[in-house]
Amino acid sequence: MNLVLLFEDDFIGERRVRLTGRRLEHVRSVHRAAEGDELVVGAVNGRVGRGRVERIDDAALELSVVLDDDPPPPLSMTLVIALPRPKVLNRVIAAATSLGVKRIYLTNAWRVEKSYWKSPRVSPENLLMQSILGLEQARDTVLPVIETRRLFRPFVEEELPGVIAGSRALVAHPYADIPLRSSPGPTVLAIGPEGGFIEAEIASLKKIGFEAVSIGPRILRVETAIAALVGKMT
Amino acid sequence: MNLVLLFEDDFIGERRVRLTGRRLEHVRSVHRAAEGDELVVGAVNGRVGRGRVERIDDAALELSVVLDDDPPPPLSMTLVIALPRPKVLNRVIAAATSLGVKRIYLTNAWRVEKSYWKSPRVSPENLLMQSILGLEQARDTVLPVIETRRLFRPFVEEELPGVIAGSRALVAHPYADIPLRSSPGPTVLAIGPEGGFIEAEIASLKKIGFEAVSIGPRILRVETAIAALVGKMT
Repeated sequence: MNLVLLFEDDFIGERRVRLTGRRLEHVRSVHRAAEGDELVVGAVNGRVGRGRVERIDDAALELSVVLDDDPPPPLSMTLVIALPRPKVLNRVIAAATSLGVKRIYLTNAWRVEKSYWKSPRVSPENLLMQSILGLEQARDTVLPVIETRRLFRPFVEEELPGVIAGSRALVAHPYADIPLRSSPGPTVLAIGPEGGFIEAEIASLKKIGFEAVSIGPRILRVETAIAALVGKMT
Repeated sequence: MNLVLLFEDDFIGERRVRLTGRRLEHVRSVHRAAEGDELVVGAVNGRVGRGRVERIDDAALELSVVLDDDPPPPLSMTLVIALPRPKVLNRVIAAATSLGVKRIYLTNAWRVEKSYWKSPRVSPENLLMQSILGLEQARDTVLPVIETRRLFRPFVEEELPGVIAGSRALVAHPYADIPLRSSPGPTVLAIGPEGGFIEAEIASLKKIGFEAVSIGPRILRVETAIAALVGKMT
């Protein structure tokens, strides 16, 4: 937790917050903060600054906060990710959020196992929690918007054309000929499931304007691939 | 496991291997392979190809193998990583290996907790196992060389100058002014611990020829940072 993310409900005064639960536990056990110490804080979807520990005990952490700086600039990249295995979903969301991605669509694909959609990890509550962890890691405050789309074809045909309007649209595909090159400007990047999108899915994406790009001969875990792609393109 | 990595001891004939233990279990429970199926295989530090399942039961998996292709080209990047927390070390080694890194130095730094060095995860056996998992993920065969250096100063002063000779040497530093830009040719990239290298360490690295580069205002987990940096530089 490189930044303590503050929510509206935390404020007990204009410049004072009272925290309990996970954040209290973390600041006590990991930061080992004492009265008078300063922590990096940020208001959700707002500014960042410092919080001075005014009280810390079993019951609560109280901070007086000054929020006087902007969060890091967002990445102008939207991710379209075939829903990963529940086991890796948390890491994917936290990693993408830490990298500055502000819009993520989790979508179905032929090679996404149906059971993945039943995992509690796909719940809005868990996706929000993983986003918060990513923001706390990266010292950011701006939550990504994460949408789930359980039907691939209607999503691609009806909604995705609007999403990619005005952006470069790329799909990472192991068998593409064109290597990925960085370029400025907004980008929508689609990443398939383990084993990749099937040819019919690649064809659907190409039909609405996606370009299939190769990211090399190595098969990467989805969270590794996202970080490498973001690094390459920014 | 996108490739079954084969070792000399596995061969029971010129083109036949017999596998037990982890690889047998994985091929049975995840691949659910049956006689006649083909798997992607590769000889450690050698060629890749296909293995036909000749026998699979509780006791063993036997494959007849044809190794007729080269593994993916290595990255010409050496990593110098301050020893991460044991909890994340496995992911760091597997991710770096999957990206194609072939030489990794795990070194001490002021902000590396001493207890990390006592973790069984720093053992050569575990580092080898994590490398194997990274190769199996990426369909590569060439093991990285991983060295541990428990004394930062002698490593930097006596050994690292030889390591960086002929390479671009960069240290990722949150407070550097120069943004990281991609460039061809061999690179040595140093990545600090959580909280970063201290100024004296940065100064030691600069003294032998490292350039401090910024990777932006976000604080990333080390495995995310490595992937983003590799993506950016390749």
